[in-house]
Amino acid sequence: MRSTWGNNLQLTIFGESHGPAIGVVVDGLPIGLSVDEEAVARDMARRAPGQDPTATARREADRVRIVSGLYRGHTTGAPLCGLIENTNVRSGDYEAMQRLMRPGHADYAGYVKYRGMNDPRGGGHFSGRLTAPLVFAGALCRQALAARGIEVGAHIASIAGVEDAPMDPVGVDAQTLRALRDARFALLDPAREAAMRARVEEARLAGDSVGGSIEVAAVGVPAGLGAPFFDSLESTLAHLLFSIPAVKGVAFGDGFGLCAMRGSGANDAMRVQDGRVTCETNHNGGVTGGITNGMPVVCRVAVKPTPSIAQPQRTVDVSCMADAQIEIRGRHDPCIVPRAVPVVESAMLLALTDLLLEEETRG
Amino acid sequence: MRSTWGNNLQLTIFGESHGPAIGVVVDGLPIGLSVDEEAVARDMARRAPGQDPTATARREADRVRIVSGLYRGHTTGAPLCGLIENTNVRSGDYEAMQRLMRPGHADYAGYVKYRGMNDPRGGGHFSGRLTAPLVFAGALCRQALAARGIEVGAHIASIAGVEDAPMDPVGVDAQTLRALRDARFALLDPAREAAMRARVEEARLAGDSVGGSIEVAAVGVPAGLGAPFFDSLESTLAHLLFSIPAVKGVAFGDGFGLCAMRGSGANDAMRVQDGRVTCETNHNGGVTGGITNGMPVVCRVAVKPTPSIAQPQRTVDVSCMADAQIEIRGRHDPCIVPRAVPVVESAMLLALTDLLLEEETRG
Amino acid sequence: MRSTWGNNLQLTIFGESHGPAIGVVVDGLPIGLSVDEEAVARDMARRAPGQDPTATARREADRVRIVSGLYRGHTTGAPLCGLIENTNVRSGDYEAMQRLMRPGHADYAGYVKYRGMNDPRGGGHFSGRLTAPLVFAGALCRQALAARGIEVGAHIASIAGVEDAPMDPVGVDAQTLRALRDARFALLDPAREAAMRARVEEARLAGDSVGGSIEVAAVGVPAGLGAPFFDSLESTLAHLLFSIPAVKGVAFGDGFGLCAMRGSGANDAMRVQDGRVTCETNHNGGVTGGITNGMPVVCRVAVKPTPSIAQPQRTVDVSCMADAQIEIRGRHDPCIVPRAVPVVESAMLLALTDLLLEEETRG
Amino acid sequence: MRSTWGNNLQLTIFGESHGPAIGVVVDGLPIGLSVDEEAVARDMARRAPGQDPTATARREADRVRIVSGLYRGHTTGAPLCGLIENTNVRSGDYEAMQRLMRPGHADYAGYVKYRGMNDPRGGGHFSGRLTAPLVFAGALCRQALAARGIEVGAHIASIAGVEDAPMDPVGVDAQTLRALRDARFALLDPAREAAMRARVEEARLAGDSVGGSIEVAAVGVPAGLGAPFFDSLESTLAHLLFSIPAVKGVAFGDGFGLCAMRGSGANDAMRVQDGRVTCETNHNGGVTGGITNGMPVVCRVAVKPTPSIAQPQRTVDVSCMADAQIEIRGRHDPCIVPRAVPVVESAMLLALTDLLLEEETRG
Repeated sequence: MRSTWGNNLQLTIFGESHGPAIGVVVDGLPIGLSVDEEAVARDMARRAPGQDPTATARREADRVRIVSGLYRGHTTGAPLCGLIENTNVRSGDYEAMQRLMRPGHADYAGYVKYRGMNDPRGGGHFSGRLTAPLVFAGALCRQALAARGIEVGAHIASIAGVEDAPMDPVGVDAQTLRALRDARFALLDPAREAAMRARVEEARLAGDSVGGSIEVAAVGVPAGLGAPFFDSLESTLAHLLFSIPAVKGVAFGDGFGLCAMRGSGANDAMRVQDGRVTCETNHNGGVTGGITNGMPVVCRVAVKPTPSIAQPQRTVDVSCMADAQIEIRGRHDPCIVPRAVPVVESAMLLALTDLLLEEETRG
Repeated sequence: MRSTWGNNLQLTIFGESHGPAIGVVVDGLPIGLSVDEEAVARDMARRAPGQDPTATARREADRVRIVSGLYRGHTTGAPLCGLIENTNVRSGDYEAMQRLMRPGHADYAGYVKYRGMNDPRGGGHFSGRLTAPLVFAGALCRQALAARGIEVGAHIASIAGVEDAPMDPVGVDAQTLRALRDARFALLDPAREAAMRARVEEARLAGDSVGGSIEVAAVGVPAGLGAPFFDSLESTLAHLLFSIPAVKGVAFGDGFGLCAMRGSGANDAMRVQDGRVTCETNHNGGVTGGITNGMPVVCRVAVKPTPSIAQPQRTVDVSCMADAQIEIRGRHDPCIVPRAVPVVESAMLLALTDLLLEEETRG
Repeated sequence: MRSTWGNNLQLTIFGESHGPAIGVVVDGLPIGLSVDEEAVARDMARRAPGQDPTATARREADRVRIVSGLYRGHTTGAPLCGLIENTNVRSGDYEAMQRLMRPGHADYAGYVKYRGMNDPRGGGHFSGRLTAPLVFAGALCRQALAARGIEVGAHIASIAGVEDAPMDPVGVDAQTLRALRDARFALLDPAREAAMRARVEEARLAGDSVGGSIEVAAVGVPAGLGAPFFDSLESTLAHLLFSIPAVKGVAFGDGFGLCAMRGSGANDAMRVQDGRVTCETNHNGGVTGGITNGMPVVCRVAVKPTPSIAQPQRTVDVSCMADAQIEIRGRHDPCIVPRAVPVVESAMLLALTDLLLEEETRG
Repeated sequence: MRSTWGNNLQLTIFGESHGPAIGVVVDGLPIGLSVDEEAVARDMARRAPGQDPTATARREADRVRIVSGLYRGHTTGAPLCGLIENTNVRSGDYEAMQRLMRPGHADYAGYVKYRGMNDPRGGGHFSGRLTAPLVFAGALCRQALAARGIEVGAHIASIAGVEDAPMDPVGVDAQTLRALRDARFALLDPAREAAMRARVEEARLAGDSVGGSIEVAAVGVPAGLGAPFFDSLESTLAHLLFSIPAVKGVAFGDGFGLCAMRGSGANDAMRVQDGRVTCETNHNGGVTGGITNGMPVVCRVAVKPTPSIAQPQRTVDVSCMADAQIEIRGRHDPCIVPRAVPVVESAMLLALTDLLLEEETRG
């Protein structure tokens, strides 16, 4: 459905990196939800760059203006539109942007799809900047889910091969997830930060970039969310996650690790505890048959290295269909993983909200 | 949208493993497509069990009856419904099925979602048998795509830790993919078959099962299929893949391998060859910015071990909310990976068809 | 969405008049609904032709086989597919059907849309026979709505200019609507039947046909169903009604009569009665701002005369693009209004169910 | 889909009458469409009030700011968002608005649906002001359709019982439709204007309002747009038309007049003219079997009298659930029919664009 996602909660996203504004229309939010705009701003800030002057300026730019669907601080049930003005639009060599296709970027694929009519400035509609509206929508859902006892959090699972401590798929709790959200550099084992930063700096000095992975979890999720065909929780969440630029892999529970396991090791034995059904292990990441089973939902996402690097690269000039070389100037994150953490959380928040509302449709 | 998938091509799936019939309604197929029912039957046979008597019987049962949308051997443009009667419905201890939740299966999640009203026989609507209609729909799309020069094929990338030779993401061609489709045990390096079968047999004798992975590729795919938000090729394909029972991970190109790479290694340098833009490498699996770039589309899928194992397992009896033990009787595939190969291909065929039709909407 | 309708309740319809079978997949029905198949059969019988031998035969043919979504007499929550085999397929001059476009029918429009590939036998997918699956789906919803205190009924408002007594938009009750459903010829004033039948017979003898109108009402509908944009109750219901062959007009409350009224006459004054808000009049047909207001929902539908008439008509032969004459042979209803009554009821039943489930999504 | 409409062209509407802004996201427009913003402004001006000072101010307020999807004057293929700031927000007795339900308005229905959380100021999201974004979206489609030789226009068919001359359903041409668009008071027979205005003035002096009807036509529409189930042209267009506040009836061709006709009179005889199939008459309004047949598409819409009238009315106070009286102050259009003309045109423009793009999906 192109730029609209969701069955019960619906997002419609719009905007280009260097256009007048970007934003999202969120429809289907619970009625009467009291919106804490400060909490929303905190999530927005987590996605914005670090603490240097430009960053502050940028964070200003990421203040969301809610132009509809909110009355006296509560959601009205009408579609809620959040707008973010692009205050910090830099000029640039647009002509070159339209000719030279950046390797690893959407440039060429988009040039073909949009017949050269797309806005090339800063990646246009493909820009990572478009994840800001997702974080905004996710922040609204976070408040709706919190009211239902559901907490979502994520950590940097790895950067350039340096792994963080793994999430405990059975014991992870809301407090742990909230703590990750408050951290500047979301790790379960802060001791890994130095090594990760060293790898990033090393790459930056080499005019290069690095990738990594993010692990996201949700606790307090009731059993019964999802569907066998076609809207399994995995399908719904993966659909959103793969809309995030640079995400190339999504896996649930032990994920690709399950390929080499046996059924006796992969099945999660069940037992009754305090009158509730629970599992002794969580190799399935809280989802069986596409539906939540009451265990924490755990998912891992692969983030490729930032395609914008300073090193000269071989590419093509579509204006004359000839080989060419490109050198991407300007400041670029040598690693986007830390800033992608709240975006991945948002995908989880949005997917759970959509499926939760779905459950409330069956009289 | 629950049981309906797709924007331009639409599938609506229905049926239970032991109900009267299963099937799918396929809408949006190109008009006037000449349907080769024999070719469809061959794809159906690939998903059915091996060559023993029961298998034959089952394959009989998987003959698809097209009850609409076809006239004089051509698609009419009206919705096409394919029906598969469940001729081989075995009776069983239904009462126990409704009480004892099989670990690793949808039983408990489905019991909660459907409030104990779902059909528990053979997994009901959750059964892997529901992938037969997907293979049928995929087989129709295969014929539509072949007419457009697109070929799709997959191989067993690994079983129980034994890896097949990897697909060449740049050089893979239609002939290779067709050859895989004709193979009884789809491998690029047939020499691995013995080791894989040994691991499976080993597990079977232990009353256990094994998992594995499948790699699927599409060649001849034009650049420009997909979208930045929300219907990227990855989102569209992953949505379908995660609807397949037992799939727990999906990754494109180098997938999770990209997490430890640098941008200079992950970006695919471009050049002009014979007047066409091509990439020297294909770390991105033929997709950048969510849109195909003209390179082969390559995707890897994690398949967990068959949850049905003979060994006794700890579980719960929901009828009295008490701990219990379950022993799953009857014959079960100790490894479903080989039979899942055509199902994974179907997801690729369906996703590409949906996105291809989408491109034809932009006058 | 082509052949799929609905946001919360979803129908996917398929089949051709003379193909193997027609049917519908209904998804989203309340879970655990106890289905009274006899009651369903009664609704199906109301749509089938009168009491002569062929009719009986036809009614046999309209027995619905539920092949999924039902277990031990209850809906499971999985998609429910109802199949109707086409047992009474008559052969005919198909070649002529494909050449000569019947005036007033879909023939030419469909020939262009489907590029001459559509099944022309008996109208193919355009046949009024496709309303049988709608009646089946509506009958299931009737049972779900009855459990919620909602009753739907319709009457022949006019045939060939002979008007029935109007429905009392304020006082109409469930008993009146049920009585209409039990009538062979649904009228509020049975005295009009003779005059109506006379007009029909008159037309039949002249090798001609007549049109008419149907008024449908729903009582017990809670206030709050619908939406301002875009899924108003009027939009949702009209969308379905205009899918019924021969329907050319839809109006709510006083409908076109409102064009000549003043606001003081068209506004429905409100008052509190027994602690509930009610209206003194119902010129708005129970819908204001696109949302139900608690009054009976009243809608009128225009049904054009059966386009199949015995008289010779001027048309075109698309095989040679030349003027031609056509004489439509075989038995045809000189008036389809009586048989269309349960179909119009079904549209109301389906629309209300979809919107009712929608309301249950807003936590 | 709540606030999103369309399968191939998609609109997502948002905003409240007295909120910060209203707007629409339009997705799926043809790529590279050159947007004439002046022509868009002309259509917007037609919906705005007449030529007195306030009107000018309001028209200012209805200037649309395109914040995305447009680059160098052309559509990019990315979602296009048009924003209209609410500059002219008057304060008012909001407290009373929330207590006293205006008869004929959405107040009570909306109060129940949105649990009293909706924005009551000026009707909030229910306001006729929300039709401005529809006119904006329609104006974009008008440019896309003009490039395909399709012209859409409408006239005031009647006001308070005074009828305009009828549209010639066979001979209507693009020139006639363009002329209607340029007229300040769109009539085919300007001589009726005086009588219509007199009726409106009469009602205004009596503190009352009047209704009327609008007839819209499209010429140059190719045969083959629409579908049998469920997206017939009538279903698609009626869905949008019934989203327009005050619309209570929609009819195609002879509409309700067909109820009293015979098949021999209602069928449109066909012939070949200049190698094209055409009809001698157009009783079916250019649509048969839900699909366009190449004749002008003609549709009539019933518009109820403005519910806001100065006369005191009986209503309820929901804050104490008691009977009450309401007197609606402030200036209100005693007749909204003239301003609704471009809105009805927009519905036709949007529906045709959606269905036209659909046709381009069938390879």
